[in-house]
Amino acid sequence: MSAYHPLNETEAIAIALTLTDVFPAGAALASREIGDGNLNLVFHISDPASGRSIIMKQALPYAKVVGESWPLTLDRARIESEALIQEGKLAPGLVPKVYSYDADLALTIMEDLSDHVIMRRGLIEGGKYPLFAEHISTFLAQTLFFTSDLGMNQQDKKNRVRDFINPELCKITEDLIFDHPYTDADTNNFDEAIRDEAEALWNDGPLQLEVALLREKFLTQAQALLHGDLHTGSIFITPDSTKVIDPEFAYFGPIGFDIGAIIANLLTSFASRGHWDTNEAARDDFRSYLLVMIRDLWTKFDIKFRALWEQHGVDRLAAAAPGYKDDYMLRLLRDTIGYAGSKIVRRIVGLAHVAEIGSIPDAAAREQAQRLALAIGKSLIKLNRSATSIDELIHTAQTAAGSVKV
Amino acid sequence: MSAYHPLNETEAIAIALTLTDVFPAGAALASREIGDGNLNLVFHISDPASGRSIIMKQALPYAKVVGESWPLTLDRARIESEALIQEGKLAPGLVPKVYSYDADLALTIMEDLSDHVIMRRGLIEGGKYPLFAEHISTFLAQTLFFTSDLGMNQQDKKNRVRDFINPELCKITEDLIFDHPYTDADTNNFDEAIRDEAEALWNDGPLQLEVALLREKFLTQAQALLHGDLHTGSIFITPDSTKVIDPEFAYFGPIGFDIGAIIANLLTSFASRGHWDTNEAARDDFRSYLLVMIRDLWTKFDIKFRALWEQHGVDRLAAAAPGYKDDYMLRLLRDTIGYAGSKIVRRIVGLAHVAEIGSIPDAAAREQAQRLALAIGKSLIKLNRSATSIDELIHTAQTAAGSVKV
Repeated sequence: MSAYHPLNETEAIAIALTLTDVFPAGAALASREIGDGNLNLVFHISDPASGRSIIMKQALPYAKVVGESWPLTLDRARIESEALIQEGKLAPGLVPKVYSYDADLALTIMEDLSDHVIMRRGLIEGGKYPLFAEHISTFLAQTLFFTSDLGMNQQDKKNRVRDFINPELCKITEDLIFDHPYTDADTNNFDEAIRDEAEALWNDGPLQLEVALLREKFLTQAQALLHGDLHTGSIFITPDSTKVIDPEFAYFGPIGFDIGAIIANLLTSFASRGHWDTNEAARDDFRSYLLVMIRDLWTKFDIKFRALWEQHGVDRLAAAAPGYKDDYMLRLLRDTIGYAGSKIVRRIVGLAHVAEIGSIPDAAAREQAQRLALAIGKSLIKLNRSATSIDELIHTAQTAAGSVKV
Repeated sequence: MSAYHPLNETEAIAIALTLTDVFPAGAALASREIGDGNLNLVFHISDPASGRSIIMKQALPYAKVVGESWPLTLDRARIESEALIQEGKLAPGLVPKVYSYDADLALTIMEDLSDHVIMRRGLIEGGKYPLFAEHISTFLAQTLFFTSDLGMNQQDKKNRVRDFINPELCKITEDLIFDHPYTDADTNNFDEAIRDEAEALWNDGPLQLEVALLREKFLTQAQALLHGDLHTGSIFITPDSTKVIDPEFAYFGPIGFDIGAIIANLLTSFASRGHWDTNEAARDDFRSYLLVMIRDLWTKFDIKFRALWEQHGVDRLAAAAPGYKDDYMLRLLRDTIGYAGSKIVRRIVGLAHVAEIGSIPDAAAREQAQRLALAIGKSLIKLNRSATSIDELIHTAQTAAGSVKV
């Protein structure tokens, strides 16, 4: 289409007008740039006359996080666009529609979801999402089963592994989740009040062994096409609808990493409630709601993944070998628990924090939430290789928080 | 250079004459086609005047095995050539030198190793190779460590994973090693005398669970760049020299698969000795020699791999986490034992057999060797997840054969 350059709003509108399926010819489009400018430009383009609107997301050739800036491949726009299209086929209605992708401009044009809220923000505000466990378990089961060796042609899968080799984005995860929190790294970012907790991580040998094993699987295990960054900031939600966005970290990795990511972010919400709820009863009520959501999410995932396997399994031996399915699902549970723990720890002492905890203005309340999150995260990491039920994860959170009934 | 077509000897000589570093200008070259015609053309080109010679190996666009023929990608010539070059850098002197590679013709020109013998044949004839364990453990440690996430830049490794995606050749392994022997598949090929053994495999649930787990790792675990077909027919040898050839199955897979492959083929030799040795004492002596070779091979590999890790490790957490290295090496041992077992079983009931057993003319002696090999193979597969020492593998072979001292 044209050589890469960051678009301005005039150019964005000109491109949007070529979408004749969306906008009437000659529409008077309005544009707002709504990205945070750290990784991408995001234009919201709307036609006040027809009420129609779209999102145009253009990758920038660098990443900025907490003041640091480093170059970042534009190829992530291709990966994001291909992953969105793939996810849309496998989990219809659970990701934004992609209208077009321009490789030269690293530009994806997609459905506008402005009627949804970012789930992280929705949870902070006490939102209840009764269909979330149902939706996200479908998303996970469908996208992960049908891109694994259990659910797709095993030779085609190898070619998809090739298409989704994603070294630069994977390195961010490898460093920020599976390395830096466990050593005195420059990128770490924690409140001085919990320096004792950070230093304990740097000296906890048994914990580091578990993280090293989880890191190894992230580096080597091409189990299925992951979203790769499935936190509550990557989910647009309403009580009726769930849309997963931003799969630029997509690559073939361990299934438990995606499931663990979303559970981790429900648990950082859990840890943060002492501030956001008006009294202890409301806090415990919201915490119970989150734990039920987590249990439902896993249970429904387990049922749906097994059902897909039963109906659409392509691996003869995996179906025939007695005990293999149960062994496989148990390993997914264990990975899920280990990755959930890792993703909690990095959100407290690592580079990138979560708003539900980081934005608590009262230092004592923030510290309390951070210590609770770390207690849960560390316990889950240490539990991962011996867990046999999602109830052990629930129980870990209950024990750390005290008095939460499910 | 030119469009693909199978070369004739005149064309092969014309191409060889362009290698001005090898042959004098205007040399009167002789050519012999020495391939078996099932997968590749192999020309031996020599200059009687200078005594110089080379091998030209050209991939054919199909595979023929035991009368069957199916199309096969010429891309395997690229993979083989790139793997040989990579192995040559990491393990100098242990693979043939590559003089050139022509992508269009799927043609690799390499060092002539006619002064060596194929190890499988050498062992049948009772050859002793006192340096083999030393050489092959170096080959394994160097090529596997430096292509793993422990020994190479982890982002570069992902790009190499992409270069070595090898769906068609992997499928041969997935079918013939990790599926067909465990069901009544058309490709299976076994003597009627051991039908009871074959049927037992088709009904052995616990064995099939172990094979399913090994199969899963072969499908998903991109641990290091494997040779992928490291049997004694892929090794040229003399008492002083070891050269690994034919890495067309190369891809990033589980390290134990390569180590297990070579051990499996030493164990099929072990099982075959009742025929090839002239008396029981000679038989037991050769068997002891093979078991010592296997133990040395693993022990030296373990020492060398750990030493490389100590000196050249690139993964901070893998070095820092207490117990990780021992855990990693134990898992390599277990995979090695499991893959060794799988590779023995497929050589008795699967499509492709081994000459040391298949060519035993006496039916009773052949059957005895087959039953012994299967006993060892099945035991190793069942041992794989609980083994803690290479001595358990040695003991398994001793127990199955009786009276072999090491």
